[in-house]
Amino acid sequence: MVLRTDNTVSAAGATGAAGSGGRIMLAHGGGGQLTDSLIAQTILPRLGNDVLRDLLDAAIMEGGSERLALTIDGYVVQPWRFPGGDIGRLAVSGTVNDLAVCGARPVGLALGMIVCEGFAVGDLDGILRSVAETAAEAGVSVVTGDTKVVGRDQGDGIYLTTAGVGVVRRGLRLHPDQVRPGDVLIINGPIAEHGLAVMLARQMPDMSIAVRSDVSPLSRMIERVLEAVPDDVVFMRDPTRGGLAGAAADLAARSGLRVVLEETAIPVSRAARHAAEMLGIDVLDVANEGKVLIVARPGAAERVLAVLREDRYGAGAAVIGRVEEARDGICELRTLLGGRRIVQKPYGEQLPRIC
Amino acid sequence: MVLRTDNTVSAAGATGAAGSGGRIMLAHGGGGQLTDSLIAQTILPRLGNDVLRDLLDAAIMEGGSERLALTIDGYVVQPWRFPGGDIGRLAVSGTVNDLAVCGARPVGLALGMIVCEGFAVGDLDGILRSVAETAAEAGVSVVTGDTKVVGRDQGDGIYLTTAGVGVVRRGLRLHPDQVRPGDVLIINGPIAEHGLAVMLARQMPDMSIAVRSDVSPLSRMIERVLEAVPDDVVFMRDPTRGGLAGAAADLAARSGLRVVLEETAIPVSRAARHAAEMLGIDVLDVANEGKVLIVARPGAAERVLAVLREDRYGAGAAVIGRVEEARDGICELRTLLGGRRIVQKPYGEQLPRIC
Repeated sequence: MVLRTDNTVSAAGATGAAGSGGRIMLAHGGGGQLTDSLIAQTILPRLGNDVLRDLLDAAIMEGGSERLALTIDGYVVQPWRFPGGDIGRLAVSGTVNDLAVCGARPVGLALGMIVCEGFAVGDLDGILRSVAETAAEAGVSVVTGDTKVVGRDQGDGIYLTTAGVGVVRRGLRLHPDQVRPGDVLIINGPIAEHGLAVMLARQMPDMSIAVRSDVSPLSRMIERVLEAVPDDVVFMRDPTRGGLAGAAADLAARSGLRVVLEETAIPVSRAARHAAEMLGIDVLDVANEGKVLIVARPGAAERVLAVLREDRYGAGAAVIGRVEEARDGICELRTLLGGRRIVQKPYGEQLPRIC
Repeated sequence: MVLRTDNTVSAAGATGAAGSGGRIMLAHGGGGQLTDSLIAQTILPRLGNDVLRDLLDAAIMEGGSERLALTIDGYVVQPWRFPGGDIGRLAVSGTVNDLAVCGARPVGLALGMIVCEGFAVGDLDGILRSVAETAAEAGVSVVTGDTKVVGRDQGDGIYLTTAGVGVVRRGLRLHPDQVRPGDVLIINGPIAEHGLAVMLARQMPDMSIAVRSDVSPLSRMIERVLEAVPDDVVFMRDPTRGGLAGAAADLAARSGLRVVLEETAIPVSRAARHAAEMLGIDVLDVANEGKVLIVARPGAAERVLAVLREDRYGAGAAVIGRVEEARDGICELRTLLGGRRIVQKPYGEQLPRIC
């Protein structure tokens, strides 16, 4: 398609993107296979470069004499306030965590807001308070920002986009290509709570809900892990959209090794398990916003667990799996009853706009 | 207001923000006085810190051994394609220019997209092509990104938010507090073209329009200016929302000195002048997206002009004013007919969503 730069809108339409019929669908934003195909077929062919193509949580660049990490995420969660947090806490946590899992110490956040006409200033103030509190907890500041307003029929409520820049610890290289057979997978606590809390809040706005989002900034906890075992953490990822299934399947695919998850070892709260059963959803597929999947050398596992468990966000830390010899790039779940099944990245998403 | 973290939405409402009746208005996003009051009364009290409070185009932070610049801007322009450019070129240019006017060399861009369900993939591809071409022109890459999709009744078209990180030239400090009486104001070409082009495209979508947006990445041109006169450029700003009036009035207020603009010296194309007359708009108030206001020591003016005029985006460069002794923080326009009037930052905006 030729880019028209005059003001006539081209007919556009039915080109590209697998399964979309030429139109963007909600599931393209879900962080699953459809998102991957949009990235592979539409975004990378245009913007591709070595750094972007790495598709990690943050991009690592040379910046003068330092290695810098840069990340960005949009937040369109609905409702914008949910059990356990709100869009402000979510936007800061998501950005801080993306930097932290890349081994970067956050040095500044940028906050872009798109607000709908008619949005209550008092609600905006509450969101900003939440942004400030979460940033303070993470030990970072919002150093720059931007506000745009759109008509009340042109959006619903508020969208935040946060970017963050960090400086990568010297000598550290966290990457799927560092992963070896024998490495262990560790998570810092029970999974699936963010996505379930938002889904329930949207479906049953008048009910009291027992599942609370885990949304939290993990940068300080992760920093302490890296200080304790600087050479033995090889890769980290925060399992947000696409859930633990997405992160683990991606790890298998990108390392080319087999990744095995032990179902009995994966922490899930009673409330989350019931909610997932009720909704017919696999907890592995549900987004987390306060979890980190750590891949470490086996000898460091106990030390990593000990450091995590000292932190308020790591009390439920557990070893949940390991990397095996088979070079098939498959992620396998060993089930409660001794069965095995392949874990795949979810196709689309359970429900749009959970983050 | 107490931040409620459960899922009942509070009554919220009628607190804060001057003149808003407790609700966000379109003009809060216009970059004028209403935006300033939202920032001063609602945003800074929550997020305030020394870096944010500086309110420059990009934030300057210490990042290891380097000084880093970070900037973010949301783009909600409607129509997303307009004479002279589109939202992709706009998003890259705006971010690159914000870094450049702070004396930073861009090292990476982050692209956040919020796309409405039903948006044509072919159009998205065209926008990404434009992003890629503009980034290549500026010599920088999009190193990370994020895509969210919202329902078709929850937005219109596409919103982009771009963040950029740059490394500040060593020894450089561009700041209003560096400005002295005698300094000159230089602009790289005719003003008001971006805002007018978008307004006309929206109002008269079927007409051929003679005014074209100036949207352009200026980083390479600005880099050459700083190389030529590293010690004699004291401040720069890209006069986007709020126009040249906003940038010049802000310079006066923040330097505490009088800033004088010579109306006859300010370059305005014939087409833009006619369009502004027709729409009853002051060209000084209209957004630019390919202009930089440079404040330089008087002895360097000729050298700055010469470097600008060598560049495709600086052919129309001119000295348009100067800083005077009076310590009243006022910006004054000397008019064609020898009159004088005070230039103020526009109150709201002429029309929403020009960027």
